[in-house]
Amino acid sequence: MRTTGKLYVVGIGPGSYEDMTIRAVNALKDSEIIVGYTVYVDLLREHFPEKEMLTTPMRQEQERCQMAILKAQEGKRVAMVCSGDSGVYGMSGLILQLAKESPDLEIEVIPGVTAALSGGAVLGAPLGHDFAVISLSDLLTPMELIEDRLRNSASSDMVICLYNPSSKKRADYLKNACEIVLQHQKPETVCGIVRNIGRNGEEMEVLTLSRLKDTNVDMFTTVYIGNSMTREINGRMVTPRGYKNV
Amino acid sequence: MRTTGKLYVVGIGPGSYEDMTIRAVNALKDSEIIVGYTVYVDLLREHFPEKEMLTTPMRQEQERCQMAILKAQEGKRVAMVCSGDSGVYGMSGLILQLAKESPDLEIEVIPGVTAALSGGAVLGAPLGHDFAVISLSDLLTPMELIEDRLRNSASSDMVICLYNPSSKKRADYLKNACEIVLQHQKPETVCGIVRNIGRNGEEMEVLTLSRLKDTNVDMFTTVYIGNSMTREINGRMVTPRGYKNV
Repeated sequence: MRTTGKLYVVGIGPGSYEDMTIRAVNALKDSEIIVGYTVYVDLLREHFPEKEMLTTPMRQEQERCQMAILKAQEGKRVAMVCSGDSGVYGMSGLILQLAKESPDLEIEVIPGVTAALSGGAVLGAPLGHDFAVISLSDLLTPMELIEDRLRNSASSDMVICLYNPSSKKRADYLKNACEIVLQHQKPETVCGIVRNIGRNGEEMEVLTLSRLKDTNVDMFTTVYIGNSMTREINGRMVTPRGYKNV
Repeated sequence: MRTTGKLYVVGIGPGSYEDMTIRAVNALKDSEIIVGYTVYVDLLREHFPEKEMLTTPMRQEQERCQMAILKAQEGKRVAMVCSGDSGVYGMSGLILQLAKESPDLEIEVIPGVTAALSGGAVLGAPLGHDFAVISLSDLLTPMELIEDRLRNSASSDMVICLYNPSSKKRADYLKNACEIVLQHQKPETVCGIVRNIGRNGEEMEVLTLSRLKDTNVDMFTTVYIGNSMTREINGRMVTPRGYKNV
């Protein structure tokens, strides 16, 4: 009798083993095969040396998901791993889309600590009130729509967390985003950047919006633009929820 | 010689032990005292029976934070626990504000899986693209500002995740929010609700925006309003990231 396959889509958090949930660890233990982007699978290899690991390079997300679905359809227990959360710019949506014609395939989505939260903890408490999460990558989204989202979030005084703030081809995207926000928020608005969250070389900085505009960041950085309430307290970035007399 | 106190602010996720990160569990193990809202502390009691537990009822957040800070200042190792993440409508901001005059007190913020992510995993992948997180509670925020944020998020086609969608005093708030979004999104927009995430009695439903408008939810529910791309796939709510030919 053939065993039934199962596909976990697992958010592993920012990178270190400690930042995984117990549910995520248990799903990986239960899996025979771990599938993912090379960098994240390498982070897991030392903790799960007995597992079969399958990787594809960056930008081959569809091939990666198809591979994971195929193995599960063959009866294997498979974990598709994503950095951060499985859903926030993660692979769970693509897995569910590609497995549409296989409604009987058991798919379990396991959430994880996305960069907005893990970087937020490093900075202090930037996301203490309503916020927007926006990716500056225009690979799959028109830039006009991204700009509209930045404009609308800033004009209603929401904190903004930016994913994919830069790459070699998009060196000026963060500057452009800051200029849009500056039409609604003051130059001294408190902002923060965190690089290599939860990994070697983790760095954070709290700075003003006008300084952020002229700061170069790389693709391993998460950026936070505060709202009118955000302040710096003892070197940390804090957006109060609004309790009285505090 | 007096030991040095330490204050952890710990996001414990939706409720079950399995949904905590290993870092959160380690912080609780390292603490002598666990402080929190009664309901969340009760969830932890069976796993950490040897710890001193201090609780305050709902709405006494300032007293709770002051108590945690005081114990840490006395030299104790203290964990202030928050459901979900420590920062997203959590206590880390208030702790940092109230400890402003004690810059030498060691405060470590530990993130957790916030309801947007844990509920998202139950529904499928609603947050696969840019999204806004908005609380409908007007206890600390003017309703005009909340409405402006809803309007702006919907008009730039962002997915919206609603916290605190209802309470006894605010029975019609979700209906009002849906009416605002309906000025920008179609009545058949795919939405989702999740109740009692990660606890006994967990329930989810995928439904249209026009049906959501006339649905009663309680304060233990998290609500997701999709964007123009969101669809239902095999009973799950999926917002695609936009890969071609999928």
